[in-house]
Amino acid sequence: MSETEEKTPTNSAVQNLECTYCGKTYNGAELHNTCPACGKVLYYRYDVQAVKERLKRELLPGRVASMWRYKEALPVLWEENIITFGEGWTPLLEAPRLGKKLGMKNLLIKDEGQNPTGSFKARGLGMAVSKARELGAKAVSIPSAGNAGGAVAAYAARAGIAAAVMMPVDAPIINKNETAVTGAQTWLVQGLINDAGRILKANGERKGWFDLSTLKEPYRVEGKKTLGYEIAEQLDWELPDVIIYPTGGGTGLVGMWKAFDEMEQLGWIGSKRPRMVVAQATGCAPIVRAFEEGAEFARPWENAQTNSSGIRVPVAIADYLMLRAVRGSNGTALAVTDEEMMDATKEIASLEGLFPAPEGAATLAVLRHLLAQGWVSPEERVVLFNTGMGQKYPEFMSFDIPVVPADTQFLD
Amino acid sequence: MSETEEKTPTNSAVQNLECTYCGKTYNGAELHNTCPACGKVLYYRYDVQAVKERLKRELLPGRVASMWRYKEALPVLWEENIITFGEGWTPLLEAPRLGKKLGMKNLLIKDEGQNPTGSFKARGLGMAVSKARELGAKAVSIPSAGNAGGAVAAYAARAGIAAAVMMPVDAPIINKNETAVTGAQTWLVQGLINDAGRILKANGERKGWFDLSTLKEPYRVEGKKTLGYEIAEQLDWELPDVIIYPTGGGTGLVGMWKAFDEMEQLGWIGSKRPRMVVAQATGCAPIVRAFEEGAEFARPWENAQTNSSGIRVPVAIADYLMLRAVRGSNGTALAVTDEEMMDATKEIASLEGLFPAPEGAATLAVLRHLLAQGWVSPEERVVLFNTGMGQKYPEFMSFDIPVVPADTQFLD
Repeated sequence: MSETEEKTPTNSAVQNLECTYCGKTYNGAELHNTCPACGKVLYYRYDVQAVKERLKRELLPGRVASMWRYKEALPVLWEENIITFGEGWTPLLEAPRLGKKLGMKNLLIKDEGQNPTGSFKARGLGMAVSKARELGAKAVSIPSAGNAGGAVAAYAARAGIAAAVMMPVDAPIINKNETAVTGAQTWLVQGLINDAGRILKANGERKGWFDLSTLKEPYRVEGKKTLGYEIAEQLDWELPDVIIYPTGGGTGLVGMWKAFDEMEQLGWIGSKRPRMVVAQATGCAPIVRAFEEGAEFARPWENAQTNSSGIRVPVAIADYLMLRAVRGSNGTALAVTDEEMMDATKEIASLEGLFPAPEGAATLAVLRHLLAQGWVSPEERVVLFNTGMGQKYPEFMSFDIPVVPADTQFLD
Repeated sequence: MSETEEKTPTNSAVQNLECTYCGKTYNGAELHNTCPACGKVLYYRYDVQAVKERLKRELLPGRVASMWRYKEALPVLWEENIITFGEGWTPLLEAPRLGKKLGMKNLLIKDEGQNPTGSFKARGLGMAVSKARELGAKAVSIPSAGNAGGAVAAYAARAGIAAAVMMPVDAPIINKNETAVTGAQTWLVQGLINDAGRILKANGERKGWFDLSTLKEPYRVEGKKTLGYEIAEQLDWELPDVIIYPTGGGTGLVGMWKAFDEMEQLGWIGSKRPRMVVAQATGCAPIVRAFEEGAEFARPWENAQTNSSGIRVPVAIADYLMLRAVRGSNGTALAVTDEEMMDATKEIASLEGLFPAPEGAATLAVLRHLLAQGWVSPEERVVLFNTGMGQKYPEFMSFDIPVVPADTQFLD
């Protein structure tokens, strides 16, 4: 936007930034990464009274079918700075056939695969690109397990700013393609996402890249928190009993936790919280281990191995925030094997027709354990998070399909 | 639904079926394929006065964000029979950066890649599975170039009915996976979609499969017609000047044409129509050829070849309906090469961030020709149809991405 054009305010009631660890506050109108004092995660705070006045719950049904329906509670100040493909407002699907098989009456799946770029990453990175650009970022960089890279590339291209993306050499082919096709600078690293993060950070200052690593800036979580707003709205402001969330960097988990607090302050929900469950892979389960050890932070996971690429994240800066949400909600954390994820993928697809990402399938595998343990009871309302389309992971599973000649007469 | 349970009416004003060719009418409450008298395409007709009374345009903003927002003008009679993942109500995106490059002021892209299963096929096949099952179908079959098979498999699984899917052996891997994962009976034929159609039809009666081949039943077009309703609603009931649509079986094209007529009868729009443009591949362009020849029907295309799998359709039963829409709207039909589609894919992705399916990219390649010819003028409002996610076509294009070691210090 040039200064002479008319701009339309979003009526955002965003205020300053606050460190989630040491509590120091910072100017929200300046571009920030982590807390300059302690290096931990910064969160935006809002003028609750202003949000209350500007965004009545009753207004929502007529609003845009995207996460921007909550714009007064989001940080972008000007409509013209919103970079959007219509991300968010994904369906919260009933899963009656799967529920019946599990003996459950109230099983739901939040289908994030219907987002632009086919994954939940669109929310956080649509927000991060929009807000970082509003605050002056001219180029962005991101280390990615796969889907985040594709999302950043898409939003940066739409915004007309440069993007640098690095992902592991064995990331899904679809993620490589969707990143490269936009013209984003793309590299594959012979290592993991934390290697990519280190290399990009070391080069970023010289290159002028604003670092969009998970929760190393305060914008992405503002997009992810809309998951919490949507679940509340879709359930008529009655939160579910349990939410099972596949956890890599954990932005969605901590984002929902932030949303629940904000909505309680707004008077939209009460103090009841869902029990928050972290789902990880047995080959990379740093948060599960830290939860079991009673630790405040998670030690890095050595030799991380899982074909569920989105949760192959050995180190996460928001470890303490995830652990706070899990403990503060009387939740739990559990790891499952890739084989369990494959079985769960077929189970969800054959009973509900939904082809989940491996990470989404992990939530069903975790639910099975929690039902067997009696930790979840069959009449509870449980939300599983499918974070992306299974279609994007052709390497995860393969299928034997019979081939027939063109002159075939009879099929068996 | 068992008979003893309460059912909720959709208030559908659907009436009988009418042949689009010979005009004979049939009972809409019985399962039908093509016209028993002449073998051509059947369409549902509605009680216009009843739709008018039950579905006021003003009600729409508060309605569900899916194609079912128009349920009074759709054929399913009972809410409980709607099989849905939230298909439809996809964004109509502005394309300002691409438009600027082309010298255009008003270029829009309807992004059907955000549908469940990542393509526009979800609309037609969500409707077809819902309505065929409502009328008693216990199993369905479909020959598919790829995306339709994946969609049928998903909806049939969600409905709890059996599905048989056959696609060419060189269909995209993603389509094979998404079909097989649901447990649908799946075959690959060493031939094209018409071979698959013939084999399935020959076996279908014995197997009890209801045939969901493109427009060989009257239900699918009722889902696809919602494209027309949505474009009208999203443009505040002012249709665009030109719609460019990638045309294989052509259900979306003829569905929109049907929707425009219905909306005019409802008084929602006037008599102005967009000029409808068929986009095909030079290696498979039966409708373009028939249009140029002035023919009523299209001859089958021999040796169909294009890597744009969705428009590799050598024969289409709705040929005469497509040609009527193109001619009745003063439209046109044009074919482009796979190379042009690849260039257009990169152009859309780099300027607008959207990774289109090859078929979607074809519409931009066609637009370039039409602008060069002066057939489209730069100030006209043009809608390009992106029928699916480019992510689902890893075979269509490849990208060279540099690989770096984990101890890399400096990036060039």
